Amino acid sequence: MKEVINFIESNNERYIGELKEFLRIPSISTLKDHKKDMMKGAKFVADKLKNAGMKNVKIIKTKGHPLVYADWLQAKGKPTVLIYGHYDVQPVDPIELWDTPPFEPTIRNGKIYARGATDDKGQMYMHIKSVEAFMKTVGKLPLNVKFIIEGEEEIGSDNLEEFVGKNKKLLKCDSVLISDTALYGPGIPTITYGLRGLSYMEVEVTGPNRDLHSGTFGGAVANPINVLAEMIAKLMDKNGKIKIPGFYDDVMKLTKLERDNFKRLKFSERKFAKELGVRELKGEKGFTTLERIWARPTLDCNGIIGGFTDKGAKTVLPSKALAKISMRLVPNQDPKKIAKLFTKYINEIAPRSVRVKVSDLHGAYPIVTPLNDKAAKAGAAAMSKAFGKKTVFMREGGSIPIVTTFAQKLKASPVLMGLGLNTEDLHSPNEHFDLNHFRLGIISSAYFFDEFAK
Amino acid sequence: MKEVINFIESNNERYIGELKEFLRIPSISTLKDHKKDMMKGAKFVADKLKNAGMKNVKIIKTKGHPLVYADWLQAKGKPTVLIYGHYDVQPVDPIELWDTPPFEPTIRNGKIYARGATDDKGQMYMHIKSVEAFMKTVGKLPLNVKFIIEGEEEIGSDNLEEFVGKNKKLLKCDSVLISDTALYGPGIPTITYGLRGLSYMEVEVTGPNRDLHSGTFGGAVANPINVLAEMIAKLMDKNGKIKIPGFYDDVMKLTKLERDNFKRLKFSERKFAKELGVRELKGEKGFTTLERIWARPTLDCNGIIGGFTDKGAKTVLPSKALAKISMRLVPNQDPKKIAKLFTKYINEIAPRSVRVKVSDLHGAYPIVTPLNDKAAKAGAAAMSKAFGKKTVFMREGGSIPIVTTFAQKLKASPVLMGLGLNTEDLHSPNEHFDLNHFRLGIISSAYFFDEFAK
Repeated sequence: MKEVINFIESNNERYIGELKEFLRIPSISTLKDHKKDMMKGAKFVADKLKNAGMKNVKIIKTKGHPLVYADWLQAKGKPTVLIYGHYDVQPVDPIELWDTPPFEPTIRNGKIYARGATDDKGQMYMHIKSVEAFMKTVGKLPLNVKFIIEGEEEIGSDNLEEFVGKNKKLLKCDSVLISDTALYGPGIPTITYGLRGLSYMEVEVTGPNRDLHSGTFGGAVANPINVLAEMIAKLMDKNGKIKIPGFYDDVMKLTKLERDNFKRLKFSERKFAKELGVRELKGEKGFTTLERIWARPTLDCNGIIGGFTDKGAKTVLPSKALAKISMRLVPNQDPKKIAKLFTKYINEIAPRSVRVKVSDLHGAYPIVTPLNDKAAKAGAAAMSKAFGKKTVFMREGGSIPIVTTFAQKLKASPVLMGLGLNTEDLHSPNEHFDLNHFRLGIISSAYFFDEFAK
Repeated sequence: MKEVINFIESNNERYIGELKEFLRIPSISTLKDHKKDMMKGAKFVADKLKNAGMKNVKIIKTKGHPLVYADWLQAKGKPTVLIYGHYDVQPVDPIELWDTPPFEPTIRNGKIYARGATDDKGQMYMHIKSVEAFMKTVGKLPLNVKFIIEGEEEIGSDNLEEFVGKNKKLLKCDSVLISDTALYGPGIPTITYGLRGLSYMEVEVTGPNRDLHSGTFGGAVANPINVLAEMIAKLMDKNGKIKIPGFYDDVMKLTKLERDNFKRLKFSERKFAKELGVRELKGEKGFTTLERIWARPTLDCNGIIGGFTDKGAKTVLPSKALAKISMRLVPNQDPKKIAKLFTKYINEIAPRSVRVKVSDLHGAYPIVTPLNDKAAKAGAAAMSKAFGKKTVFMREGGSIPIVTTFAQKLKASPVLMGLGLNTEDLHSPNEHFDLNHFRLGIISSAYFFDEFAK
């Protein structure tokens, strides 16, 4: 490994030059004008995989933007890791807020500024470079490696989802290694081992068959906004517990180890509250803020509308009111089951004086990798070696549907070895990536190969 | 009186011809293009008042459209009645839904179709004709009469409000007679003796200082939509009682006479619910629907908005949510006091995890004329004579601010002798007025003069 690590350390300047070349490609997946750039992005990835020594490098056409596949399967008896990443990037608007142009990568204070720097070109490229380092030094990899790189992560991964379902054999692996999340903080080696799921519902309440004058009719009929508000109020109790019967039945309890791990992160509730501009944080009683956002299910109204909403006063008693309500789920909650429980409960608490329509708009499965999973442990050990300090374990409150798809379809543990930072302006102007994390990421990737092969 | 009534009966055709002439003037107060028509409308009214035998007829310029004033004050020792009405009308859109042009009055099935037919040209013109009938027969009126006719009722009556405040002496009277409301039903003589007031509030709830991702942050902070919904749910109990402390303190109780009067109206809750398309009516426990909409205070959300409200799903935990909440008031509730109680209560129930801003957008005083008031009794007796059946007493759930202004500034009882019907499409295409009610209204007006003079 010493030889490999030395190679990485001494080639750092070249890596940055190549990354700049990659970042100059404006591969914005959502804009039609950039169709050619998408192919350019896929070709760049394919070329670099080939140069690194990967075999079977293929650009695979889809209904949308192409996928890039590659493998190296000459480590007999050794495990297989599938590396996922994406070469597409977010749009750049508002362009006027960029200090330097989004597709002219610029280095300032050890950070590289460009669209896609941290999300996900910089992070994905680390793994190509670690493969190269093995090939250029020891001439082989310590385990079997597959790459699947997509160009549609920012627009929903639909074609990759389909591809995974149809190509389970091709993508068969023991673990999926992904660098598309964040470190807990600068310089802190971090493995993200859980993601929350989602059940996103819509509730429409209809009262009278038309908007009424609230003077002439106020007091005669149930007001759909008031009724909707009362129903929302019945979704959670004063301790922040969700009141839907059966909602918590499948919730995996936080282990003592996990709670201890979270505690060690020295999260400052005061700093967090201040940054969000709130006098106090709020959520389910009996859990810390990190526990609540990472490992407990929650319920939030994402939107509500009804009646007159312009400036001023209009005395309307509206016919309809609508709310969008989503629940973040944790293992082993099933979004389909939760949607049914939610619908049942809403129908139960809906008064006869209104009609209620509940729609299931969207769902995502939660996922968690056990902390004693071989791949997770290898990831943690690798990062500890690279950073020279102990790796921390965190979970993430959001959902990344493709991660769950890999886990479910390929029966493989995902390892989220993110090297970004949530402060690196991903999706915003002046996106950047810390070049020290880039270097440590390549080393972490190399150590992961070594550790997971053991 | 016989002579007067005979005159009215035998001049009916002429009245309808004159009303048609009046209805041909497109006096739409809200549209600038019709400024000349507004003056034409005022002149028509002034001319007809003069021809009827009224004195001191004046067209009074305001910052907006002119007022028309007239008086006849030669009945020494007799009471004075001030007659109010308006010559302005609503716009005609959507014009394509009119069966006949809005300013070409057409008679079908005993109803005259034109914009302004029932609201309020037809109703106001009745009183000019009853004055004329006295003058052309007995040569004098049995009491003192003043007219104040405005051209801005459909746009808020601002200039008349100001004029009343500044001309209390000119408008001094014992009663204000107004025909701008509806009969309880076709052919049912009706006195409306109460109007509800209004307190219209806005509540804005702010949580975090920006919209957050509900995955990453859900469970960490209070969600302003959920909080707003919970606060709205705390405004009323399950019996429909408003929970704001002190809210009912000044509420005048319904008398047994009033409740009996309402009961006699044989209101069909089933028909009403069916027409509104609801399975059941709903409101404050312990009161009938008519009691609830006419004589009990109510609370309605008139609008609510927050977060993502377009089609589909967006996982936002919004920074703000806003609701418009109004309360209909009954005597002797004071909208200013109610606004204060509302604000205090909202601030009390607002959790520390959000910031709440309460604004008082608009208020109107409730009013009720005692059933034993001399003018109300004269109105009821007059209608009973004209219609040949007993007058019913109703109240109205909405507010008519100018009525309260008259009552407060002039210390005179308003008599709402409406001859319209709520089904006559006022403010809508195909507005019309029942010509039988027009005729009975002129007779009712004449009888009122006679009765109130006693």
